[in-house]
Amino acid sequence: MNLLKERIVKDGYVFGDNIVKVDSFLNHQIDVSLYNEIGKEFFERFKKYDITKILTIESSGIALAVITAQYFNNIPVVFAKKSESLNLDTDKYSSEVFSFTKNRNYNIMVSKKYITPNDKILIIDDFLANGKALLGMKEIIDKANATLVGAGIVIEKGFQEGGNIIRSMGINVQSLAIIDSIENGTITFR
Amino acid sequence: MNLLKERIVKDGYVFGDNIVKVDSFLNHQIDVSLYNEIGKEFFERFKKYDITKILTIESSGIALAVITAQYFNNIPVVFAKKSESLNLDTDKYSSEVFSFTKNRNYNIMVSKKYITPNDKILIIDDFLANGKALLGMKEIIDKANATLVGAGIVIEKGFQEGGNIIRSMGINVQSLAIIDSIENGTITFR
Repeated sequence: MNLLKERIVKDGYVFGDNIVKVDSFLNHQIDVSLYNEIGKEFFERFKKYDITKILTIESSGIALAVITAQYFNNIPVVFAKKSESLNLDTDKYSSEVFSFTKNRNYNIMVSKKYITPNDKILIIDDFLANGKALLGMKEIIDKANATLVGAGIVIEKGFQEGGNIIRSMGINVQSLAIIDSIENGTITFR
Repeated sequence: MNLLKERIVKDGYVFGDNIVKVDSFLNHQIDVSLYNEIGKEFFERFKKYDITKILTIESSGIALAVITAQYFNNIPVVFAKKSESLNLDTDKYSSEVFSFTKNRNYNIMVSKKYITPNDKILIIDDFLANGKALLGMKEIIDKANATLVGAGIVIEKGFQEGGNIIRSMGINVQSLAIIDSIENGTITFR
């Protein structure tokens, strides 16, 4: 998605060889027009599936998910909640996710009421790096016996292993910008 | 907003005398059509002001804020980030907020880049109860020498003190549903 790649180059801040900060338009301040273009693009890539629900994870995935849902005839969005403590509620599906940023595990949870075996689910998230959050959401979808149709990602760090791991599981991952490397301040897209 | 009140009565779950769970449509699963009606209503109530930006707080305010921003000609949304630790960065505005739910303080932060003295800001949030989160966002707006135009709230717990405190400060708070009491499982709106 060229509009997005141009924006990453124009407004992203590169730190070292593996961090690009995009908080001026994606995950702190939000450019709602750009979000709509992203939502339209996800719709184009997944419209042939009969998607019933969008799943994301708090916080920064939520805005992307609701804007995208508008293009899918306002299907419901469910966001997995993060929790420090292990969830012992029997009315929730949970999964343990390791955060490399915070160097510890956290739990994500979805109420059993909001994912059913009839659901065909599209996962939406802003970043794909090591893939742990996405695998956690997949685990919850599997526990609910629902169907994971695919994942729409805004920025994939192609130099980390998440994309390969998840594609090798047969999951349809559509990343709108895949960064293959960041060297001397220059971003190279796949 | 009658559509919202009817939905709260129909799909809300009441616990005791002060909790109503609305996570089937508002803050876990999201009804995107209802969110659009909420966004339109906020626009009607605040359209006469020349609002430049919407401020909210993670997580559940974010979706409301982006949907609402669409009715204000896609103005930017900024969401304050929560942090356990005190923020020592000089490039961020921060405020300490007490959480009654978690019985401890947390910090909220906004990058100085994303609020400027020229900004006329509308705060959007899902709940107003004790008002601490809203006051934290007001403090950040004040530190940035920006203008707080008002606050759009989906559900106000009228039996808690937040609404009174904030209105007595002269802030234009528009709550789409004000719950005055919850008694024996029955919700009474103002």
